[in-house]
Amino acid sequence: MILSRRLRKSPYEKRAIENGASFFSLYNKMTLPMVYESYEKSYEHLCKHVQLWDVACQRQVEIVGPDALRLTELITPRDISKCAVGQCLYAPLCDEYGGIINDPIILRLAEDRFWLSIADSDVCLWVKGIAYGRGFDVKVFEPDVSPLAIQGPKADDLMADVVGAHTRDIRFFWFIDETVAGTPVKIARSGWSGKGGFEVYLQDSSRGEELWDLFWGVGQKYNVGPGAPNLIERIETGLKSYGADMTIDTNPIEAALECYIDIDKEAEYMCRDALVSVREKGESRRLVNLFIDGEDMAPMRSDWPVLSENGAKVGFVTSKVWSLKYETNIAFAMIDAPHIRPGTRVTIDAEGDVRSAVVRTDRWEST
Amino acid sequence: MILSRRLRKSPYEKRAIENGASFFSLYNKMTLPMVYESYEKSYEHLCKHVQLWDVACQRQVEIVGPDALRLTELITPRDISKCAVGQCLYAPLCDEYGGIINDPIILRLAEDRFWLSIADSDVCLWVKGIAYGRGFDVKVFEPDVSPLAIQGPKADDLMADVVGAHTRDIRFFWFIDETVAGTPVKIARSGWSGKGGFEVYLQDSSRGEELWDLFWGVGQKYNVGPGAPNLIERIETGLKSYGADMTIDTNPIEAALECYIDIDKEAEYMCRDALVSVREKGESRRLVNLFIDGEDMAPMRSDWPVLSENGAKVGFVTSKVWSLKYETNIAFAMIDAPHIRPGTRVTIDAEGDVRSAVVRTDRWEST
Repeated sequence: MILSRRLRKSPYEKRAIENGASFFSLYNKMTLPMVYESYEKSYEHLCKHVQLWDVACQRQVEIVGPDALRLTELITPRDISKCAVGQCLYAPLCDEYGGIINDPIILRLAEDRFWLSIADSDVCLWVKGIAYGRGFDVKVFEPDVSPLAIQGPKADDLMADVVGAHTRDIRFFWFIDETVAGTPVKIARSGWSGKGGFEVYLQDSSRGEELWDLFWGVGQKYNVGPGAPNLIERIETGLKSYGADMTIDTNPIEAALECYIDIDKEAEYMCRDALVSVREKGESRRLVNLFIDGEDMAPMRSDWPVLSENGAKVGFVTSKVWSLKYETNIAFAMIDAPHIRPGTRVTIDAEGDVRSAVVRTDRWEST
Repeated sequence: MILSRRLRKSPYEKRAIENGASFFSLYNKMTLPMVYESYEKSYEHLCKHVQLWDVACQRQVEIVGPDALRLTELITPRDISKCAVGQCLYAPLCDEYGGIINDPIILRLAEDRFWLSIADSDVCLWVKGIAYGRGFDVKVFEPDVSPLAIQGPKADDLMADVVGAHTRDIRFFWFIDETVAGTPVKIARSGWSGKGGFEVYLQDSSRGEELWDLFWGVGQKYNVGPGAPNLIERIETGLKSYGADMTIDTNPIEAALECYIDIDKEAEYMCRDALVSVREKGESRRLVNLFIDGEDMAPMRSDWPVLSENGAKVGFVTSKVWSLKYETNIAFAMIDAPHIRPGTRVTIDAEGDVRSAVVRTDRWEST
């Protein structure tokens, strides 16, 4: 991979490389360390200990000003009026057709100030365009904020040692303000794994290494390691990835995100008509969980068609991994409505590697 | 680099890899082959022969409908009313503060239909937001269009052999519609080098390999090679790269793009007040060309400060390369207005590698 000034450097990048990051992705035009040693070893460590993740590429979009709530309501079908100051909400953002633009965690910093902690698309440009077009009295910009995730079952102990025992009381999807390593941060109980932990929102990118070093040093007694969003763990946990499992061509009902939207919320929002229509007609397709038979498969590099029993194309796989927990290939797939019932048998054509698969419930447990 | 469904595959990617692409970048969330053999060998080949470039990542934003011209005018200080159907215009897009959002080539496909052939940012989202906010009667979307560039001094001969002698008459920054390799394309005389050539806008991504193979086969007699936007050639030619040499924090006057804007154009546009103000006050800084003394330097991976003779920071380098033509390090740098006169001596601190440098004219020739 060739890097240039166009591709931004994370404040933690140096530490990630020193600790053996061997493969990177790019996310919001910033480096994202993806692999240390292997997905499998990192998964096993994450399940038992605590890891520091360089997720600075999870950039923030700040919306601040008298019309901040009105604008934030407008761009999502989630009811933002229910979000207290100090709270976070996972919220799909949707355009006027219901297409998902991004799926950030929204942090409410003040009555009239929000951060969208975003997946990989230039949400800032979209929101700026809407604010300009509507003439809203807000500022929309990307602040200098770079999250460091502390994930794993020992994250609470590590955070208590570094910041104080009161951090054990931070509720899920709430955050507090602190000064850590001499620099102001927000600490949220959140993160892109099912193993618990925090995201620390650094607000001065020149202080990344000090922040990393503090958690790294204290973390030695908890067997702290470097880590990254883990493909195996995130699919087992049911976390969907924007750009892979959902795109602008997907609405949040198809993406199985019903519990994160409030179609009948009071505030004005862009995709109301589109979602009401989907609700009335029923979705034509849906993102489901699959077990795929046989040994481990090659990584996905293109769409893999999903075929019905009579050989017709009825969908496509969106993410796939070999699960260490279930000891089989697990996948998400977008499948036409007649074929989404748990227990349905389908066929996957993985560039010539043809496999049988079965639809599971969204908790994997059963067909 | 780890690839997934989130990062899109170019229709030419297979051919690029088969022909020895060894380093890739990501651009608009799509792979961009950057290096075959070396920048130097590719440069020498480009200066003499003809190359096929996989630039599918130069995505299109289509704006179509009754308000298409009004919307396209709104987002750029360039006068789009002067763009005829069949013509292309290079146009910085700017927000209401004058900040550059992108610098596409705009193709006028019809009176009420445009493509923005974009650099690396989600322009589609920004334009969608503005269109929604203003209630314009347009559709804004990314069509299935993937440019293949044919660049180099023998590009005219190759195009004439493949498509017909009439392609020699395509004027600079105009395009025609053709059917090539059995699929409809637009052929523009344009491209991101100073060596001449075309961009072929494929409109069916399933046909990329056929298109490549046709030009590749016929091109054998012209010593056709695989290629890519070349860092050496583009800086020697004076081509600025969005994200490196200009960003949302740069206005088009600072970016030395005055000849591509019409501040007093008739149509409404977002950044009029901002640019009028810059014109009145004079720009506070400007992108200039530099010669940097000494041997070749390490690649840039962070901002390199530019210091005045008294050691004060007066700017930063935005792109840098060893020039084969001038046999010295050449660079673009954003420098405070008092230090931009050709001939001014400055100092570059390249992460400890301290060098003397001199401001050149924007054609490099002289101080």
